[in-house]
Amino acid sequence: MTYFNIDPVTYEGPKSNNIYSFKYYNPEEKIGNKTMAEHLRFGVAYWHTFTADLSDPFGVGTAQRDWNNLEPMEQAKARVDAIFEFMQKTQIEYFCFHDVDIAPEGSTLQESNENLDVIVDRIKEKMEETGKKLLWNTTNNFTHERFVHGAATSSNADVYAYAAAKVKKSLEIAKKLGSENFVFWGGREGYESLLNTDMKLELTNLANFFKMAKNYANEIGYTGQFLIEPKPKEPTSHQYDTDVATAYAFLQKYDLDDIFKFNIEANHATLAGHTFQHELRYARDNDMLGSVDANQGHPLLGWDTDEFPTDVFDTTLAMYEILKNGGLAPGGLNFDAKPRRTSFKQEDLVLTHITGMDTFALGLRVAHKMIEDNFFESIMDTKYQTFKEGIGKKIVDGTTSFAELETYAHNLTSIDNASDHLEVIKSQINQYILNINNKD
Amino acid sequence: MTYFNIDPVTYEGPKSNNIYSFKYYNPEEKIGNKTMAEHLRFGVAYWHTFTADLSDPFGVGTAQRDWNNLEPMEQAKARVDAIFEFMQKTQIEYFCFHDVDIAPEGSTLQESNENLDVIVDRIKEKMEETGKKLLWNTTNNFTHERFVHGAATSSNADVYAYAAAKVKKSLEIAKKLGSENFVFWGGREGYESLLNTDMKLELTNLANFFKMAKNYANEIGYTGQFLIEPKPKEPTSHQYDTDVATAYAFLQKYDLDDIFKFNIEANHATLAGHTFQHELRYARDNDMLGSVDANQGHPLLGWDTDEFPTDVFDTTLAMYEILKNGGLAPGGLNFDAKPRRTSFKQEDLVLTHITGMDTFALGLRVAHKMIEDNFFESIMDTKYQTFKEGIGKKIVDGTTSFAELETYAHNLTSIDNASDHLEVIKSQINQYILNINNKD
Amino acid sequence: MTYFNIDPVTYEGPKSNNIYSFKYYNPEEKIGNKTMAEHLRFGVAYWHTFTADLSDPFGVGTAQRDWNNLEPMEQAKARVDAIFEFMQKTQIEYFCFHDVDIAPEGSTLQESNENLDVIVDRIKEKMEETGKKLLWNTTNNFTHERFVHGAATSSNADVYAYAAAKVKKSLEIAKKLGSENFVFWGGREGYESLLNTDMKLELTNLANFFKMAKNYANEIGYTGQFLIEPKPKEPTSHQYDTDVATAYAFLQKYDLDDIFKFNIEANHATLAGHTFQHELRYARDNDMLGSVDANQGHPLLGWDTDEFPTDVFDTTLAMYEILKNGGLAPGGLNFDAKPRRTSFKQEDLVLTHITGMDTFALGLRVAHKMIEDNFFESIMDTKYQTFKEGIGKKIVDGTTSFAELETYAHNLTSIDNASDHLEVIKSQINQYILNINNKD
Amino acid sequence: MTYFNIDPVTYEGPKSNNIYSFKYYNPEEKIGNKTMAEHLRFGVAYWHTFTADLSDPFGVGTAQRDWNNLEPMEQAKARVDAIFEFMQKTQIEYFCFHDVDIAPEGSTLQESNENLDVIVDRIKEKMEETGKKLLWNTTNNFTHERFVHGAATSSNADVYAYAAAKVKKSLEIAKKLGSENFVFWGGREGYESLLNTDMKLELTNLANFFKMAKNYANEIGYTGQFLIEPKPKEPTSHQYDTDVATAYAFLQKYDLDDIFKFNIEANHATLAGHTFQHELRYARDNDMLGSVDANQGHPLLGWDTDEFPTDVFDTTLAMYEILKNGGLAPGGLNFDAKPRRTSFKQEDLVLTHITGMDTFALGLRVAHKMIEDNFFESIMDTKYQTFKEGIGKKIVDGTTSFAELETYAHNLTSIDNASDHLEVIKSQINQYILNINNKD
Repeated sequence: MTYFNIDPVTYEGPKSNNIYSFKYYNPEEKIGNKTMAEHLRFGVAYWHTFTADLSDPFGVGTAQRDWNNLEPMEQAKARVDAIFEFMQKTQIEYFCFHDVDIAPEGSTLQESNENLDVIVDRIKEKMEETGKKLLWNTTNNFTHERFVHGAATSSNADVYAYAAAKVKKSLEIAKKLGSENFVFWGGREGYESLLNTDMKLELTNLANFFKMAKNYANEIGYTGQFLIEPKPKEPTSHQYDTDVATAYAFLQKYDLDDIFKFNIEANHATLAGHTFQHELRYARDNDMLGSVDANQGHPLLGWDTDEFPTDVFDTTLAMYEILKNGGLAPGGLNFDAKPRRTSFKQEDLVLTHITGMDTFALGLRVAHKMIEDNFFESIMDTKYQTFKEGIGKKIVDGTTSFAELETYAHNLTSIDNASDHLEVIKSQINQYILNINNKD
Repeated sequence: MTYFNIDPVTYEGPKSNNIYSFKYYNPEEKIGNKTMAEHLRFGVAYWHTFTADLSDPFGVGTAQRDWNNLEPMEQAKARVDAIFEFMQKTQIEYFCFHDVDIAPEGSTLQESNENLDVIVDRIKEKMEETGKKLLWNTTNNFTHERFVHGAATSSNADVYAYAAAKVKKSLEIAKKLGSENFVFWGGREGYESLLNTDMKLELTNLANFFKMAKNYANEIGYTGQFLIEPKPKEPTSHQYDTDVATAYAFLQKYDLDDIFKFNIEANHATLAGHTFQHELRYARDNDMLGSVDANQGHPLLGWDTDEFPTDVFDTTLAMYEILKNGGLAPGGLNFDAKPRRTSFKQEDLVLTHITGMDTFALGLRVAHKMIEDNFFESIMDTKYQTFKEGIGKKIVDGTTSFAELETYAHNLTSIDNASDHLEVIKSQINQYILNINNKD
Repeated sequence: MTYFNIDPVTYEGPKSNNIYSFKYYNPEEKIGNKTMAEHLRFGVAYWHTFTADLSDPFGVGTAQRDWNNLEPMEQAKARVDAIFEFMQKTQIEYFCFHDVDIAPEGSTLQESNENLDVIVDRIKEKMEETGKKLLWNTTNNFTHERFVHGAATSSNADVYAYAAAKVKKSLEIAKKLGSENFVFWGGREGYESLLNTDMKLELTNLANFFKMAKNYANEIGYTGQFLIEPKPKEPTSHQYDTDVATAYAFLQKYDLDDIFKFNIEANHATLAGHTFQHELRYARDNDMLGSVDANQGHPLLGWDTDEFPTDVFDTTLAMYEILKNGGLAPGGLNFDAKPRRTSFKQEDLVLTHITGMDTFALGLRVAHKMIEDNFFESIMDTKYQTFKEGIGKKIVDGTTSFAELETYAHNLTSIDNASDHLEVIKSQINQYILNINNKD
Repeated sequence: MTYFNIDPVTYEGPKSNNIYSFKYYNPEEKIGNKTMAEHLRFGVAYWHTFTADLSDPFGVGTAQRDWNNLEPMEQAKARVDAIFEFMQKTQIEYFCFHDVDIAPEGSTLQESNENLDVIVDRIKEKMEETGKKLLWNTTNNFTHERFVHGAATSSNADVYAYAAAKVKKSLEIAKKLGSENFVFWGGREGYESLLNTDMKLELTNLANFFKMAKNYANEIGYTGQFLIEPKPKEPTSHQYDTDVATAYAFLQKYDLDDIFKFNIEANHATLAGHTFQHELRYARDNDMLGSVDANQGHPLLGWDTDEFPTDVFDTTLAMYEILKNGGLAPGGLNFDAKPRRTSFKQEDLVLTHITGMDTFALGLRVAHKMIEDNFFESIMDTKYQTFKEGIGKKIVDGTTSFAELETYAHNLTSIDNASDHLEVIKSQINQYILNINNKD
């Protein structure tokens, strides 16, 4: 069966009117010393594309999918076939999933695991056939009602154990499929209210959970990168992994910072009150940037809209951070994005991915050009030049004192600050974007 | 004296590296049947550029200006000279001011008015000399401590009278200088708390204030367009002219909707939880779009940042609305924007305006091209085609009934909705922007 | 069958430790010249209590209900029995529903209507048996996928017709059950994006929809109050009935303001950036306050949390507005609130309603006492005294002019504003609340 | 000279109508084993009360103060006299200041320090006379234009040195006056935009700054507690000490967590998207709760409103955290709050402090009663009981593994979660508040 009646999507360049073509993403084109495909490492998010029904809190699903009316296991199989066909046709090399995305939960843990085994085998076969790879997998410990009070931070030890068993199985799957990363997103790890929450106990339990996960990975020889995905709120009122800084505080406190890096989602950043670039930079500065959930939010809405990225300014800055990080590998750019509820046709899966891929491809092209030109580096060099020698260098090196600085300050006859002219910088970035296809 | 030691800023095209040139704004270039200058009608906001000191709630002013150390009236005169030189060098044809921007307040109303007379004469002379024009003037009835409880909505009738006297003077200035519009921004017309506010009384007084203003304008033969500028909050907790819709409700209730149009500020729109385009569209749909305060806010900050516009996607959509409105005249695009506190040099005034002008010039170029191509119009035609005939037409025309619609509904065998594929539309807009300079 | 194994909930006073008792709500106690029951007119929201499963965007339903595993029509019948038992045991006199809350949709409009007929008959019987009343009913034109692009503002005329047929049926039910009000909440009447929306056409269609609804009500002799319930966003990015002011602008424009009043929801107010009191006051000032959806939001979350009200300060101010409005009748206080997802037991339905009822009962007691003491009235009298005579009175009456006001202003020797000391007012409100049970 | 023509404010109990009396704060009354004064350790914030002019971004100061028209040094002296008289009359034992609050800056660092010396001597004398104490002092390294790019994170090494010299002087003042704490609030330590910011360099410099500060304190024998005050934004777009968790991550990374605790401000918490209680709890759980800036924000406004606290529910929860922390000493409750701009009379300083003190006194009374009753403790005991033995205990102790947990999970026949019934808890807290004065 064919799920997407289209020709493989190929690069046709910026002037093409064919909505089924790439305008900016040209997988084999070299940007610097890597191909665009090597730079971008795009991934498909199983849940938003092949499992989601596009329901919202006020409406049922609208997604029209060929597998909608099949029995659960048949549906699961059809989705495997569909996603591999999809990756072939869109030239996407990676995919990502939660356990429950790929196979239906059974009435017992045992039965759930058996369902998983069947589908994992099918996926493995498809991977071998196509060469497609698993960017990361993760465990959904938030949808089922048993997780009403959390999973690794549940107030119920039975639930904690159940959650652990599920992650154990996911790690085995990761090992089996060669997953390049393993992600933890704590959808229920947080609280509705502090009035009935022992945050300290819950965080201790969470730290122990992570340690056991790592121990088990070591035990079975699974060596993928462990990633935490921060989010500030939704579904809970306060999620423990609020943002990169908060999660980094936690990891340091419990001596877990060597074990984890971060999977940073653009929309989670904005919900936390930060720019996407901020979260990337903070992680990069601390050598903790692991992977990216490439989407965008709606700046006027207070919930996770998980839109396909279309803001070129933002993807340019994101790709700047990623290039300066030396890329994301073994991480990648997973589209944790779903078509709008009003984009409900199966073909919209293709069209939305083209949108997201082209937006990041543009960002890559522009960021690369800016790095070639030392655009930001020159700005920084000029701005911070006083820290390169003399008293400034001593400050950076930590070799001065308040007494010495006071003497220095008393001797200053004037202080001369430079204008940052941020507006010019923004204009110039616009110019970079506008000129990227302008070859004349 | 020369305030800006630069050559006049001219168009050098998108590849220029000269930060003192326009990359996209080419005043005399025709876009459709009008020049860019005729389309855009740019204005300088006296207060943010020639009066503001760039202080913020936690810091004093940083602006370095040649007139900083002059006595008040000398300062006022220097600013007049400076702004006219500035307009000459930046090719901006219009300017806007509050009464207190141009002349210092005296210790009495009389003295304030005398100060105004001196400066207004100087401005008039300069206008005649240079051909520059006054886009609008307005009255600052919010900065002085007498307006602590509001002006036209003050709880103190003396203050109300004082505010009226100031607006009366401003109308006389408008008449004298041929101001094309007259603006009301109610900076203190709102409340800190409802606990001690009689909103109904205050709104009645406000309506009466507007009526008296119009009567006085008629009396002196001032025929400029009256404009209300909505803002939801700041400085008060709730401003009465919250957004276009709220102000429109007020105008309708008090039979003032024929007298006013709106001056829409981008940053005020976002503070109210709306997109800039939404406020423009709402006003346009109701034939109430008069003028624009062209700036942008910071999507993550909860106060008015009044940044120079740099978001090309947004200015494209704004210019689309403006073009579909048949332009803004007698209104225009006033940059109600200030350099960042860190962009404190006098030259930053030039650089920031170049940024804003280029961003809107780009928006104009792209929006014009999209209208030529019927881009949005085709989308709408397809989407709403069922309302062009049959039952749909009767719905629009108001010639059907629930009974008829029920019968129709019972006869439907299926309902077939189309996907809106919003993501493709956004991609295509990006493509329009990226291709605007791409002539190959 | 018994659904709630509890004794009827009765008033036990503020010291009671029985969580199944009222501490502040004493239905038959007179507050002024009405009983608390007459003042408060509490209603149960069918959807949040007897239909909702407590799912959220990241998790399935957790609600444990006796009827969870029944077939749809049996479930519908069980819910009718349960809600009437519930109202008996909680001393709530009113209930509210959407069409789809009470009966399952069929595969055709015809079948849906037949299901409704069966259940409406059962409800009517129960109403007669118990004396319980229908505060309002409404039509759910947002959950089903056919409403993906809206209902009365759908881009598809077929959907519009279908929505009209559903409202027609709902009006017939309203007539049959003697519904005291009829509500419109436009859950899908808005847009995801302006990029593909003809807002003007959609609003025209919406106005025509409302006119046809009123015509049909007149035709069948249904005389209940028509109410619009504003909400700014969610599920759409922009809902047309954003807030009271926006909806009032719309109603005025289309000459519908005599036909409608507003049903104001606390959480919708805060999502729109207003206090609950603001929306009540705005509606009251314009004689448009019809009914209330009594809930509260979470001040730090950007979506509709629909919590049971617990903030006594807020309910005091709400009840102040309601008392000054002369009460809400024929409207009432409908708890548009759901138990938290973590409060999933059937008994939580009782406990959450006790919470909400006690919070509003307290608000009523305090507000009544404040009105007896002329608390706010004295504040206003002092604050606005200058508008009671002389120039102030002429301002209010609209009998002065700018010329007269200017002369007056020139003659002022000083302006003397009074301190509002808002902080003292807030303290005193706290004191009122704290002393309400303090009889010594 | 007398600045406050009132009798000392005393406790008159909850029924008093005297706005110049305490209704709930009774300094010498024992609550548990400490007096209310010992528990609450109230402090006056020099800046908001004796220095602030109540200006806002759209208006000049409105504060009417006896010292408004004095020369700078005379003004500084008058303020010292006024604040000590104020503390006497309001029974407040502590005060707090920035260097620039107490003495005017001179034209050189030398001159500024000489001004400080004069005033510090006067303060010291007054402290000895009255027994009033300095809760903390701090350095204002944000108002002056030299700090336009930050202080300890400035891009200019000269500015860094100047800032260091100012903190050095402040530490000497702290030593001299026996300041119980020393606070760092990084008003300009953050960025306007990442586009021109080297965050990593700036944070390294900030860490070195803190280390030098501690070294200097050690050198001069100053032993007060060092405190960081987090804030997420304003004046910068992103402040480095965003919230407690972010600052804790920073302190851990640079090995500074043993040196610092946190000074937590309620309004900063809400600007960061957290409840006040959350920030207190997070700090307490990590043994980092040092002191509190007792104010509140406006939930609908996006900037720091610094209101005097009036929300009893919130102060109850705050006092619960503080009592569980074993109190705040050597920290305290500093009112970092200013009268509204409309509360501009000198007497409003007294009235607003009474409001704040009573609100926290109420919170103390209620929280103490709840702790006596083990209210929250019982809830937690029941909720987390499964972690007290068996597999749950092993989880907490970190002595189990995924393998063991999986076996345990496979053996579970069902999972039984309890309802949290949060609504009942909130109701009961309301009952505690309402009953606190109800002795019958």
